[in-house]
Amino acid sequence: MTADDLVELRRELHRRPEPAWREFYTTARIVDELESRFGDELAELHVGPEAIDVDNRLAVPDDAELTHAFERARETGVDEDVLESLEGGYTGAVAVLEKGEGPTVGLRVDIDGLPRAESDDPDHEPVAEGFRSEHEGAMHACGHDAHATIGVGVLEEIVDSDFEGTLKVFFQPAEEVIGGGKSMAKSEHIEDVDYLLATHIGLDHPTGEVVTAVDGFLAVSHLEAEFTGEPAHAGGHPEQGRNAVQAMATAVQNLYAIPRNSDGPTRINAGIVEGGSAANVIPESASIVAEVRGETTELMEYMVENAERVIESAAEMHDCEVEVELGAQAPSATSDGELATLVADAAAEVPGVETILERDELGGSEDATFLMREVQQNGGLACYVGVGTDHPGGHHTATFDVDEPSIGHGIETLAGAIEQIADERP
Amino acid sequence: MTADDLVELRRELHRRPEPAWREFYTTARIVDELESRFGDELAELHVGPEAIDVDNRLAVPDDAELTHAFERARETGVDEDVLESLEGGYTGAVAVLEKGEGPTVGLRVDIDGLPRAESDDPDHEPVAEGFRSEHEGAMHACGHDAHATIGVGVLEEIVDSDFEGTLKVFFQPAEEVIGGGKSMAKSEHIEDVDYLLATHIGLDHPTGEVVTAVDGFLAVSHLEAEFTGEPAHAGGHPEQGRNAVQAMATAVQNLYAIPRNSDGPTRINAGIVEGGSAANVIPESASIVAEVRGETTELMEYMVENAERVIESAAEMHDCEVEVELGAQAPSATSDGELATLVADAAAEVPGVETILERDELGGSEDATFLMREVQQNGGLACYVGVGTDHPGGHHTATFDVDEPSIGHGIETLAGAIEQIADERP
Amino acid sequence: MTADDLVELRRELHRRPEPAWREFYTTARIVDELESRFGDELAELHVGPEAIDVDNRLAVPDDAELTHAFERARETGVDEDVLESLEGGYTGAVAVLEKGEGPTVGLRVDIDGLPRAESDDPDHEPVAEGFRSEHEGAMHACGHDAHATIGVGVLEEIVDSDFEGTLKVFFQPAEEVIGGGKSMAKSEHIEDVDYLLATHIGLDHPTGEVVTAVDGFLAVSHLEAEFTGEPAHAGGHPEQGRNAVQAMATAVQNLYAIPRNSDGPTRINAGIVEGGSAANVIPESASIVAEVRGETTELMEYMVENAERVIESAAEMHDCEVEVELGAQAPSATSDGELATLVADAAAEVPGVETILERDELGGSEDATFLMREVQQNGGLACYVGVGTDHPGGHHTATFDVDEPSIGHGIETLAGAIEQIADERP
Amino acid sequence: MTADDLVELRRELHRRPEPAWREFYTTARIVDELESRFGDELAELHVGPEAIDVDNRLAVPDDAELTHAFERARETGVDEDVLESLEGGYTGAVAVLEKGEGPTVGLRVDIDGLPRAESDDPDHEPVAEGFRSEHEGAMHACGHDAHATIGVGVLEEIVDSDFEGTLKVFFQPAEEVIGGGKSMAKSEHIEDVDYLLATHIGLDHPTGEVVTAVDGFLAVSHLEAEFTGEPAHAGGHPEQGRNAVQAMATAVQNLYAIPRNSDGPTRINAGIVEGGSAANVIPESASIVAEVRGETTELMEYMVENAERVIESAAEMHDCEVEVELGAQAPSATSDGELATLVADAAAEVPGVETILERDELGGSEDATFLMREVQQNGGLACYVGVGTDHPGGHHTATFDVDEPSIGHGIETLAGAIEQIADERP
Repeated sequence: MTADDLVELRRELHRRPEPAWREFYTTARIVDELESRFGDELAELHVGPEAIDVDNRLAVPDDAELTHAFERARETGVDEDVLESLEGGYTGAVAVLEKGEGPTVGLRVDIDGLPRAESDDPDHEPVAEGFRSEHEGAMHACGHDAHATIGVGVLEEIVDSDFEGTLKVFFQPAEEVIGGGKSMAKSEHIEDVDYLLATHIGLDHPTGEVVTAVDGFLAVSHLEAEFTGEPAHAGGHPEQGRNAVQAMATAVQNLYAIPRNSDGPTRINAGIVEGGSAANVIPESASIVAEVRGETTELMEYMVENAERVIESAAEMHDCEVEVELGAQAPSATSDGELATLVADAAAEVPGVETILERDELGGSEDATFLMREVQQNGGLACYVGVGTDHPGGHHTATFDVDEPSIGHGIETLAGAIEQIADERP
Repeated sequence: MTADDLVELRRELHRRPEPAWREFYTTARIVDELESRFGDELAELHVGPEAIDVDNRLAVPDDAELTHAFERARETGVDEDVLESLEGGYTGAVAVLEKGEGPTVGLRVDIDGLPRAESDDPDHEPVAEGFRSEHEGAMHACGHDAHATIGVGVLEEIVDSDFEGTLKVFFQPAEEVIGGGKSMAKSEHIEDVDYLLATHIGLDHPTGEVVTAVDGFLAVSHLEAEFTGEPAHAGGHPEQGRNAVQAMATAVQNLYAIPRNSDGPTRINAGIVEGGSAANVIPESASIVAEVRGETTELMEYMVENAERVIESAAEMHDCEVEVELGAQAPSATSDGELATLVADAAAEVPGVETILERDELGGSEDATFLMREVQQNGGLACYVGVGTDHPGGHHTATFDVDEPSIGHGIETLAGAIEQIADERP
Repeated sequence: MTADDLVELRRELHRRPEPAWREFYTTARIVDELESRFGDELAELHVGPEAIDVDNRLAVPDDAELTHAFERARETGVDEDVLESLEGGYTGAVAVLEKGEGPTVGLRVDIDGLPRAESDDPDHEPVAEGFRSEHEGAMHACGHDAHATIGVGVLEEIVDSDFEGTLKVFFQPAEEVIGGGKSMAKSEHIEDVDYLLATHIGLDHPTGEVVTAVDGFLAVSHLEAEFTGEPAHAGGHPEQGRNAVQAMATAVQNLYAIPRNSDGPTRINAGIVEGGSAANVIPESASIVAEVRGETTELMEYMVENAERVIESAAEMHDCEVEVELGAQAPSATSDGELATLVADAAAEVPGVETILERDELGGSEDATFLMREVQQNGGLACYVGVGTDHPGGHHTATFDVDEPSIGHGIETLAGAIEQIADERP
Repeated sequence: MTADDLVELRRELHRRPEPAWREFYTTARIVDELESRFGDELAELHVGPEAIDVDNRLAVPDDAELTHAFERARETGVDEDVLESLEGGYTGAVAVLEKGEGPTVGLRVDIDGLPRAESDDPDHEPVAEGFRSEHEGAMHACGHDAHATIGVGVLEEIVDSDFEGTLKVFFQPAEEVIGGGKSMAKSEHIEDVDYLLATHIGLDHPTGEVVTAVDGFLAVSHLEAEFTGEPAHAGGHPEQGRNAVQAMATAVQNLYAIPRNSDGPTRINAGIVEGGSAANVIPESASIVAEVRGETTELMEYMVENAERVIESAAEMHDCEVEVELGAQAPSATSDGELATLVADAAAEVPGVETILERDELGGSEDATFLMREVQQNGGLACYVGVGTDHPGGHHTATFDVDEPSIGHGIETLAGAIEQIADERP
């Protein structure tokens, strides 16, 4: 049900997965696809630094990682001009289609891969069919290759449709590190969007199911704390040290003990910690990479505020210094029921879609929420649509894969919803 | 070997034990004894506020406790004039004997009881002999009744001796709470003391042993921390509380973890803690009564400084306030070998003294160190003398008692040493 | 709107508040009222040990407290025979009215007071009207005096009505310590109940409001931990101690850090802690009085299990022993919509009831849930009904009071609902 | 004052520093030197597995590291037969010289380098003189190159002297990780040693100073703890995790809080910690590399016992597993005064030695103590001799270096002492 050329596009993207802010090949490949398919039919095509607010990128990797990925992309032979415009980690694209008077509808799809190896099991479809990742240690293990393909496919459907209005497709980088959503939400391109659809494939729903409104996004924030003390010989002069590991351990214990909040669920995790250099040296440095979440942005901020105080007091307690850096963040968001209804109507018309679920809870985080809230705050409506796909392994695992017919379900459901939006302007 | 009248004095004091700063009866009884025995032979007799520096009393109990003890003393029929001069907890006395040209020698004895009940076992000597404590919940469980008696006895020996010089006997209040030593050390009476002897009975040495120099006093400081947070319903709104018990628990854990110090032994103890009011209320208050010690005053101060920082950071961590109050303190001190030698010589002459030990480590704290350091800083010498006594129960226990002949050992050893000091001026 | 004689009953109960398991006067007074009003009309009247399962009383106070309250009750001149049957803290009553063929409907009202002083502000209605608590340190600060009165009032309404079936009114002791619900739920009297109504007045709803189904009861469990270590002199031999305060502090920190649970809200509070005896003694004992809660009984049990493991490991870590005792517990429960609808219908007929709310979240705990679950597990239906009352002070505060007309609202609403239940058998 | 050929030997060893159990080149080079210098004059020469008790090696690195170092040694062209006997990390040597009837004297020198880079400052003598380390990331930063040279030099002195008895020189591997001392102490070669000398250069004493007895070795033990829990999505299902980082942090806090011990100084350090894999995953693993010390072996064992209990309870508290492995250990030891006196006498005869200190406290740890205790327990005497050297940088720093004339001081002092031992048999 998915056109062969789109399947081919998805497999090419799958073969070259690029993690956050390194989607050099990916962006150039998408741009090439858009230009060759639509040419002048597109009113605008914003690429790289033109597609995002460059001051609002979050969680950008260091130069060495960017350069490595950039050089690797160059070797693929993609358009040099496009590639060079992306240098330094300014990836992503926004395609704009104008078809007469009508509302502006946005579709957000994300395009980044994950820093994990792909299975080489011969039964793993990408192995069997020859499109397994060629980038060592990287994989499209969350279906963003399919999302990018859906973005192209929806444009194609709308070009050929009776839709009247403007369609903007946001090919967003760096979702996996909740790093790209904010930079797209703060770009000028979102400002006139009246209706926004975002989408995700899988999420433990099988091929043939559509969830018209995914909800339960927890707002999230990353925190990194670097504790600095003073080393000393642990046998000779322990009192001369200022022990960064004691500070860190005190912080960890008290982070998890931040009071539960009666306004809704919260989360805290000190996910990566380390400290010290040798058994016989009082540790002079230690670090925590943590994340906090909340059902609402307010609850997330409650956790951030408490976590910062705990960390700073723990440092002070052990006479250490600490740098706390807030990393990537994403707010919570809620899908609007009016849009969900239209999605349901559209899905009902799609061959192969057999089950339509009204609501489902994600229970995780997503930075599409930045765009959703931006649109909602401007008076628009937003909805996050789940498209089922049979996936053999779980999200983020080595054997994750997309059942390709479901890409078509996504394209048709979303295109149908977009047409209805233009008709009904809910 | 101890004169009957002195045994009688000791037993009267034993019958009316008075804890720190409440030695109303005790002081008045001692003054009465001094006046009736020595009358005008004493050059000076300073009582209560005249005996101490009133601005340097530490760990004074509250008015209710002072008043209760004062009224109880009044009922014993002691001299009203003396008693009234002590009102408000200004206890203790300094007796001065002048006998011609010569050095000024000080003898410090402490006089307070302990806030603990005495055994009523019929085999307990004070029970059998009818001088068990008549003050409920108080007891001379550390032999200070014997110390006061020794002070009187030494005066008597010296009055009748060839000693030439000045003898000052310091009857010090409030040793048990390390509260009185500083106020005596800061009084004018210590200023001209050239040689100081302090003494303690027992210390796990049997009758017949004398320790010429007790050492190893740890400097000590008490700390009290009162944490204040905010209550909240633990089920309904835990996030609205500011949890003083969490702050206290964090402090306790980190207090014990203050780094060991290579300069010498240190100690820390959170001896009494409490907090909270009900199972279902986030605790709004909590407290810690702690003490820190160090082999030297510097080490004690190292512990105080770290403890304060830990406590304040723990409060801040849980968004609580905290009041930290430093309580009573005593420095460390070391006995001078020159005096110890004279004590050994004197002890060798005392019938019944069979073993003379040069040095022993106390491993605890004592506020005689305030007076010892004061004298040493003025260029004088000081020595802390242990006098063995068979004590059935340990110090501070309900069955502690003094073997009365050892009181005589103490009197004769100290009087002998004082005579030798005047002779030899080491 | 509330009959004068019922107002008088409520005030008499208010004047003699009796906390958990000490409702001696209260039970005897209710029994007297029932007998004088209904005499032989009652098919059964079970009192004290006959009303409850004596093996399932929770949180019973010690003998001294029971005796004190018992003697105080005796002085009021209530029926000696009834009183004696209650001796030892076997309080409460179950009144059974049989009126022909029909369902068995239960009504549960609680009758205990709280251990807190009542305001003596002249503006406080019980002061102004002369029915302030005569029991020092005790108060009906949660309206259970009104609940007991409602129980009597409903019986009276039903006696005079067309109701066909059996009505059982459970006058339950010890709700405030979640101590009595289980013993009533485990008694034989609940076994044949087809429909159960429970009720509470106030809950921040004003006079004239009725909440047809209060929900959101958190399951709750109390825990008490007694840590035992070994004392030692903190200066002399700290290594000989086994520090119960360190164990307690470690437990406290880790109790609050029990992982949040994605299945729903949980709570933990170490509400009362204490430990140690003196600044210079390594603490040999310490204790925690804690409570845990969960949205469901499973979540509460998740917290209990984790809390027990934390406490036991903390003791072991510091080489201490610990006794963990689970105190009173209550499960969660949910009101059945079918009954709530009937309550709404009944409330709509009551003059003075102006607002009917469908559902409200309590966000606390209640041991009526024991009875509700018992009935539901037997295939019956249960509903917890809120009756608004203007209360000047909050629940459990010194100025709480009941606006007496609302007692009538409660009686009529519940009686109306009971009649409808018999008619409609939902 | 140091012979040129010995300076040359020291520089060759310096050029090829090999850390613990990887002294392949070093051992072969020493063996070569011994054979070429002494040939058949040596009664025995035990190499590698023949020199040590192979079952008592501690802190052996993994195979990859051993193989890498072995292959590197092979490339230097040292004797293949010797080299192969060392394969697998069985390094070190014992040379035995027999010269008639007399006592057996042992001399222990250590030979391993450190895993740290050497300064490339042109002013750093090894750079200026062209013998800087050729092994990247390794350096003789503690003077063991000089120690090995002293061992050879002392043999040469004794060969040419009037000494009567047996001299055994122990070229010990793996001192820096306290890994080799035990395996030499448990070998048969130590059994008949009557007198043992061990030596260290530097220790903040300048050239021209000798310390006849270094003391104050703290007994030490390494501990490694590996915590294993269960990962879970920190946002989605935190309750499904078993958090190894929480266990580790609880352990760290309580390790530092192990009670101080009145029997003497103790130490604890959690020197290296780490845990977790990603911000959004409940950490399934964590580790602590710690060390404990004590003034005596008993105090060290007190710390080990407490540390193990803390770690195991912390794991249990968070439902994790933990493997605790005791790493390398060394006991405390005390130099015998009788030997120290002879060393002083010998040093007084050495030109260039200007200051002789009787005792100095090391305040660290050393595994020579294994050999010292073994000899002492067999009824022999042992002494640890410090030989001053001007060292520009501190021990273990990048600019550490030995002032070469002091090598001669060491040789002559030790050889002189060995001769006197044979003469005087103290």
